[in-house]
Amino acid sequence: MEDYNRILDDILHTVNSVDTPGNVASYIPELAKIDPFKFGVSLQFVNGETYNAGDYDERFSIQSISKVFTLSMAIQCIGDKVWDRVDVEPSGDPFNSLVQLEHEEGIPRNPFINSGAIVICDILLSELENPKDDYLQFMHDLQGSDKIQYNEEVFKSEKSMGYRNVAMANFIKSFKNIHNKPEDVLDFYFYTCSLDMSCVELAWCFQLFAQHGKCAPDGTLFLEPNQIKRINALMLTCGFYDESGEFAFRVGLPGKSGVGGGIAAVLPGEFSIAVWSPKLNEKGNSAKGMHALELFTTHTEKSIF
Amino acid sequence: MEDYNRILDDILHTVNSVDTPGNVASYIPELAKIDPFKFGVSLQFVNGETYNAGDYDERFSIQSISKVFTLSMAIQCIGDKVWDRVDVEPSGDPFNSLVQLEHEEGIPRNPFINSGAIVICDILLSELENPKDDYLQFMHDLQGSDKIQYNEEVFKSEKSMGYRNVAMANFIKSFKNIHNKPEDVLDFYFYTCSLDMSCVELAWCFQLFAQHGKCAPDGTLFLEPNQIKRINALMLTCGFYDESGEFAFRVGLPGKSGVGGGIAAVLPGEFSIAVWSPKLNEKGNSAKGMHALELFTTHTEKSIF
Amino acid sequence: MEDYNRILDDILHTVNSVDTPGNVASYIPELAKIDPFKFGVSLQFVNGETYNAGDYDERFSIQSISKVFTLSMAIQCIGDKVWDRVDVEPSGDPFNSLVQLEHEEGIPRNPFINSGAIVICDILLSELENPKDDYLQFMHDLQGSDKIQYNEEVFKSEKSMGYRNVAMANFIKSFKNIHNKPEDVLDFYFYTCSLDMSCVELAWCFQLFAQHGKCAPDGTLFLEPNQIKRINALMLTCGFYDESGEFAFRVGLPGKSGVGGGIAAVLPGEFSIAVWSPKLNEKGNSAKGMHALELFTTHTEKSIF
Amino acid sequence: MEDYNRILDDILHTVNSVDTPGNVASYIPELAKIDPFKFGVSLQFVNGETYNAGDYDERFSIQSISKVFTLSMAIQCIGDKVWDRVDVEPSGDPFNSLVQLEHEEGIPRNPFINSGAIVICDILLSELENPKDDYLQFMHDLQGSDKIQYNEEVFKSEKSMGYRNVAMANFIKSFKNIHNKPEDVLDFYFYTCSLDMSCVELAWCFQLFAQHGKCAPDGTLFLEPNQIKRINALMLTCGFYDESGEFAFRVGLPGKSGVGGGIAAVLPGEFSIAVWSPKLNEKGNSAKGMHALELFTTHTEKSIF
Repeated sequence: MEDYNRILDDILHTVNSVDTPGNVASYIPELAKIDPFKFGVSLQFVNGETYNAGDYDERFSIQSISKVFTLSMAIQCIGDKVWDRVDVEPSGDPFNSLVQLEHEEGIPRNPFINSGAIVICDILLSELENPKDDYLQFMHDLQGSDKIQYNEEVFKSEKSMGYRNVAMANFIKSFKNIHNKPEDVLDFYFYTCSLDMSCVELAWCFQLFAQHGKCAPDGTLFLEPNQIKRINALMLTCGFYDESGEFAFRVGLPGKSGVGGGIAAVLPGEFSIAVWSPKLNEKGNSAKGMHALELFTTHTEKSIF
Repeated sequence: MEDYNRILDDILHTVNSVDTPGNVASYIPELAKIDPFKFGVSLQFVNGETYNAGDYDERFSIQSISKVFTLSMAIQCIGDKVWDRVDVEPSGDPFNSLVQLEHEEGIPRNPFINSGAIVICDILLSELENPKDDYLQFMHDLQGSDKIQYNEEVFKSEKSMGYRNVAMANFIKSFKNIHNKPEDVLDFYFYTCSLDMSCVELAWCFQLFAQHGKCAPDGTLFLEPNQIKRINALMLTCGFYDESGEFAFRVGLPGKSGVGGGIAAVLPGEFSIAVWSPKLNEKGNSAKGMHALELFTTHTEKSIF
Repeated sequence: MEDYNRILDDILHTVNSVDTPGNVASYIPELAKIDPFKFGVSLQFVNGETYNAGDYDERFSIQSISKVFTLSMAIQCIGDKVWDRVDVEPSGDPFNSLVQLEHEEGIPRNPFINSGAIVICDILLSELENPKDDYLQFMHDLQGSDKIQYNEEVFKSEKSMGYRNVAMANFIKSFKNIHNKPEDVLDFYFYTCSLDMSCVELAWCFQLFAQHGKCAPDGTLFLEPNQIKRINALMLTCGFYDESGEFAFRVGLPGKSGVGGGIAAVLPGEFSIAVWSPKLNEKGNSAKGMHALELFTTHTEKSIF
Repeated sequence: MEDYNRILDDILHTVNSVDTPGNVASYIPELAKIDPFKFGVSLQFVNGETYNAGDYDERFSIQSISKVFTLSMAIQCIGDKVWDRVDVEPSGDPFNSLVQLEHEEGIPRNPFINSGAIVICDILLSELENPKDDYLQFMHDLQGSDKIQYNEEVFKSEKSMGYRNVAMANFIKSFKNIHNKPEDVLDFYFYTCSLDMSCVELAWCFQLFAQHGKCAPDGTLFLEPNQIKRINALMLTCGFYDESGEFAFRVGLPGKSGVGGGIAAVLPGEFSIAVWSPKLNEKGNSAKGMHALELFTTHTEKSIF
């Protein structure tokens, strides 16, 4: 039997002994000031066994990992109608590209690039009574506690700096694929990105995707297995911007990254895993995080392939 | 326990009862004259259990499914050096696009679009003594017999019509990412595409990808498990041109399609499956084939996600 | 000697006898309700001779023709420094494309596509004390009277509908090539587009470009001959969006069109000419207007080529 | 009255006193070995006055300047039907881009980018009895002598290295916009590019475009004034690849450049001018040549604008 504590410790040791190149996200001050050498990991099997290492308990900004949660909520709300508004193909372009959006007349390539997530937030704004409260409640239900909160400094900074997202939302609106006011959609979008969570909390919430739609705290079915299958497929093909192929190739797990340096991934039916390290590679994904996950799946031979 | 004979019969009945739109590939006469209503399927578990239905025994042109076999050979020859010559990202563009090739200076996005497969054939041309014979031998070894042959009519037709592939090969050569003469590379490339195989034969050869690199006839290790993991990851993210996301989303298996109407796919560690039906959807993938595989994984809940 | 009255009448007759396809701009109600069959023309030689026909005296919305005036003002203000902020190449893409802007990192291709004109307005906002008043004063000086006014209904409609321009301004801002607040830049930009002018007034103001920089009313030198040469060159290569080549090819005069159906053009040293007819061809240029100018330069053999 | 001898001498002095950056074309050995410091100019008025300076009498490879001659021949052969096969818009992309060709389904943007010139050569191949002889005869007629010859070394080198042009021709053929065999079309295309001419000879042949279609040696009408107007318009908007706007902006004359370092231009009705200097700027146009022409039109105020 594998000694997962030791495997995680070895990985921690290996990634910390390498001088990984890369830079902490700097477009807002709250992200820029994080210690670049942080590294944490939490591995949680579906039977409840949990293994942690490093800064696994420290909260960081989940950023784009939120896109998986908002997509899940949107599917809860309107089911397959989500796919009339966003496509399910990899983009092959950087995460904030407007090029494809122009060629494809306002239908984002998938829900995990910014344009797609903004459309998902527009859906939620139309469907939910109190979008921000309902989103936080969804996270609290997944977590089985109300400790997850949004970070107001991050939220405000994002709002004040996000010219490109303002461009994106107005551009999609010009194609009529946003129904609410662009500024309201963005206000909610930035809110969803500004949650602070730890590796332990993220891996716990990602049990939803490891357990075929069952919520970890109480086993409630949040989404149908077939819906989770599709979200997992999307994470695999589109979860890492234009490095999704590389991640599938090297790691081989469905997952989602954020510019805060977090990555959450699952092996359906077996485990969820969350890593965090703030330095990003040139594609915007956590450099040490990708390295750690590659070491993990290569060593344990636990991947979907 | 599942009654797979009955499941396949039900699928056969369902896909044949629907008037699936689409057209048989018509760019060469040999493909255009195939009966569009053919449908076959072969399901083979790693323990040897095999279930077939419809025209499972009739040979058809494997076309681009060959790209998985040539990639496997190239990895046998030069290992990870393959990835210096082709990338591993989805293309997001149709299968014969020159646009990305221009932006990315002659490095094809992945080995499963035409440009990538042409570069793979160039590698084999440099590495193999007798490329065509060696390729056929590789297939015979996988099959455990010498019944698989190339179709000379198809080969000649491809050669006489492939202006766009000539364009592609010369374009890549202008970036120095083809080392042999473009006409020699294409002669070999068209040869590899022009094999005729049945669903049973294809599923049998695809056991290589279901059995982590072991050859079905005698259990020889053809490729390392880690290499197979990567090929499977590539099939999932790139195996269906710009419909790869859709296939992952609906079916959830690594696989590869060809314009002859064939699709071969695997659930690693469990089974391989090959379907064939000549009518193609607008993305160039077998319309009934995709439908059949979606029915199969939805009904059996056997997918990687 | 040419009888220009008769030539213009013949052209009026010819363009009105053809059932030109095309549609009036409809994105704002004020433009959509214009009578599509209006046609006016005014031809003014540098010696003061003037010939008019049709609805030459009726005011219409100048829209993008304003881009020539704002560029002229920006060159007055900061001279060649304008070219650090916008390029001088044809775009080859539709007038409101964001694609090139993304590839070229926020530097618009030329000052006559929307993105370029928005950057020009940003320059004026930084340089002028009272941008709107100063712009109107500039037009009054060119005209030698204060009759030209902006249309408040058009201005308000543009502001309420211009999602794509909001997208554009914020996108450029994300590349730091807009220095003021995007909403302030757009407020001024929409103002500059919303002037109402007649063919007679437009041709009179365009004497500036026919007379090498001299203002028609009093001969004041507004711009250096060398600066006018460059503006004229830009009008020829970029004045008609992605139909600029076609206009140069068929008409052979530097000019600028607007979606209100106006076109103003010059033969440097000889004449200015303004035509107006609201139906636009599929490229967004006045269909009858282009036809009329082609008839004029073909018949009189008066073009720059 | 202007002293043109002195003006040209001053220009010669100025361009030679500047250390112009840039590199001689090196893709074939015959071009790479030319002395980069050569500079020649020939100015010829329509009344026959001629002024020369520097290496005006030395022959060099005209390369893409030939595209103006082949277009003229094609218009002689089939008139306006040429425009069914090539468009008249600036490309906004480098001279050998395949991107636009793909988006626009095999119709080149204009006859002065490589793809367009290849289609023009295909037209001539279909129309002419002995394409190479007829082309040389056309040049001899324009020149009034048979001294212009093709350079066999250059021709052979181009043929052996032109992978990208082979790609282009086959790509266009795949869209059915080439009617002959791609290799035959390219053989002729490379032939047309491989003429050697001096500045004096080029300016003399360009009298055709200065004299509204009349051949300089004997006043024969080779093309209609209206056809010449259109060729001149195309030279202005498309004659310098993606630097056409810059050339119109700085120089303001219709013209055409070649990678051999030559540029020929005209002021319709007044003069033709040819310059030659082998060092190319990063856009592939003669660096000193552009500088010289800008000095000339700025000093003399002789431009079309």
